[in-house]
Amino acid sequence: MISLHEAYQIVAATIPLYVAMILGYISVKWLKLFNPDQCSGINKFVAKFSIPLLSFQVISKSDPYKMNLRLISADVLQKCIALIAFAVIAKVRSNGHLNWIITGLSLSTLPNTLILGIPLLKAVFGDEAVVLLAQIVALQSLIWYNLLLLMFEFSAARDAYTLQEELEAGQEAERIPRRKAMSVLKTVGKKLLLNPNSHATIAGLAWAFISFGCNVKLPKVVKDSVSIMADGGLGMAMFSIGLFIASQARIVACGTRLALLTMVLKFIFGPAIMAAPSIAVGLNGVLFKIAVLQAALPQGIVPFVFAKEYNVHPDILSTGIILGLIFALPVALLYCLLLGL
Amino acid sequence: MISLHEAYQIVAATIPLYVAMILGYISVKWLKLFNPDQCSGINKFVAKFSIPLLSFQVISKSDPYKMNLRLISADVLQKCIALIAFAVIAKVRSNGHLNWIITGLSLSTLPNTLILGIPLLKAVFGDEAVVLLAQIVALQSLIWYNLLLLMFEFSAARDAYTLQEELEAGQEAERIPRRKAMSVLKTVGKKLLLNPNSHATIAGLAWAFISFGCNVKLPKVVKDSVSIMADGGLGMAMFSIGLFIASQARIVACGTRLALLTMVLKFIFGPAIMAAPSIAVGLNGVLFKIAVLQAALPQGIVPFVFAKEYNVHPDILSTGIILGLIFALPVALLYCLLLGL
Repeated sequence: MISLHEAYQIVAATIPLYVAMILGYISVKWLKLFNPDQCSGINKFVAKFSIPLLSFQVISKSDPYKMNLRLISADVLQKCIALIAFAVIAKVRSNGHLNWIITGLSLSTLPNTLILGIPLLKAVFGDEAVVLLAQIVALQSLIWYNLLLLMFEFSAARDAYTLQEELEAGQEAERIPRRKAMSVLKTVGKKLLLNPNSHATIAGLAWAFISFGCNVKLPKVVKDSVSIMADGGLGMAMFSIGLFIASQARIVACGTRLALLTMVLKFIFGPAIMAAPSIAVGLNGVLFKIAVLQAALPQGIVPFVFAKEYNVHPDILSTGIILGLIFALPVALLYCLLLGL
Repeated sequence: MISLHEAYQIVAATIPLYVAMILGYISVKWLKLFNPDQCSGINKFVAKFSIPLLSFQVISKSDPYKMNLRLISADVLQKCIALIAFAVIAKVRSNGHLNWIITGLSLSTLPNTLILGIPLLKAVFGDEAVVLLAQIVALQSLIWYNLLLLMFEFSAARDAYTLQEELEAGQEAERIPRRKAMSVLKTVGKKLLLNPNSHATIAGLAWAFISFGCNVKLPKVVKDSVSIMADGGLGMAMFSIGLFIASQARIVACGTRLALLTMVLKFIFGPAIMAAPSIAVGLNGVLFKIAVLQAALPQGIVPFVFAKEYNVHPDILSTGIILGLIFALPVALLYCLLLGL
């Protein structure tokens, strides 16, 4: 069973993150220190510099030759289960609209691994967890966020197409779908090329393969240049989450029923569909615990940023983030208890 | 003589700072990533959070019982010499106007100790230098910046008073000076109370006295909460200097002759009037070298912020910062050579 000392360690690892977040919240809500444009300056700094450099740092420091294929398969299977489950639900309830699949997937399978996950799980499992989480972070930014982007683009294109179809009433209708698919892929490709986080992840992975393969290290000057910007990344990211919460009109923006559903998807469904394939592929011991505990982390920020950009249920995702952060600590402690830590 | 290895260490300690600064510069000048309001959001974050927390961290970690009274006296004497010298020059050349005293003092005696000084001198002298520089940082933010503020306020009040005098032509003229002095002190007091950096410095000093006196340490949670925000302070501060440089229309805003004068005041006069009292009070060996080398650091940011606020030669101060940063590294290496390091 989880000891008081371990529980304290988890709390102690989480509090600084929350302090940074609360500072951000207070500085807008009470002190009126930043106007919306100034907040967006700080958010942009976090998105373009802090997070990519933090991703690079985490991924490049983790031995990719210690890649755990079982954990990765369980992670992939979790997303597949979620995709199928939400596709079925969407088919039954809303004529198969992509938007509900996207939102369901975001809520249940894309937690905040980089910012909250690494400090929290490091406190419980030590450095071993960091190597594994680095793999999940790399997969998130190389595959899952891009898949999400693709789905958002297809959904937006379909909506545009439906509108156009109604207007043009069948004229050249058979040529449009192919044009549509091409233009969606082009848009997504362009966004990928412009995304500093993809670059940082690829660079981090490439350097990790070289450095752990040939046993070379980054020159101190380069390492220090990355860390001078990345070291503050965690604090800045949490601060900007605080700014975000302060900018929301309501904590629960989507209504109580949907908010409850969000929490069930996040804290029960997500970890459950991670636990099942983890057992199936034979993950056990510490690995199994890491897999489940990271699935129970509060929801990530990137899916919300996309949801806002494409205007696909941003209120639900925002509620998911805020409530997720509020309940993260008790939920993490509860899961530690359930997992027999 | 300075060895190639030591020279490399100084360069290696400085490059990450410049990388952060250049990133800031590029992101505005070339990438047009931030508009002026967004830049001011980042600058405000640096001024209200990064710098105060960094000051707290540096000051609270340094043993105040190891205070070096000789170094502090030399530092105080340097400022006094500068004050007298510039008062004489101002008397001769511009009817004793305070503004030239302020600008001369800022250029020659207020270097960027916190951001550039600590990493650079730590590379040369190790942790011993940090303890001493922490004392200079504390003096800067408790005494010198506040004295500067007082002078700025008096200068502004005198200008306003002269204007008023001309308008009112002697009416109640004898009562105004006293009212003026009171209102200046009130304004300065209010600014001090609102300045997070003073609070951070006082809190840092207070905690340093308690912690080194009673041998207690900050609880890990508190320490981590400070460092999650302060760790990125250095990078953020340099990044925001880069934003500042990019926002200036010209690198040399004040004309070539004044720019040359700035550099002479900064890199020759400043260190010279530090060296003289240092010898007089008997500083020698490493302490003497630290005292002179820190006086040859590029000019600090705070005096520029004040100069801009009060519109007293901001162009000269901006040139001083930018050229200072460009020449900082060769000048530091030259001084190391001269000091026989």
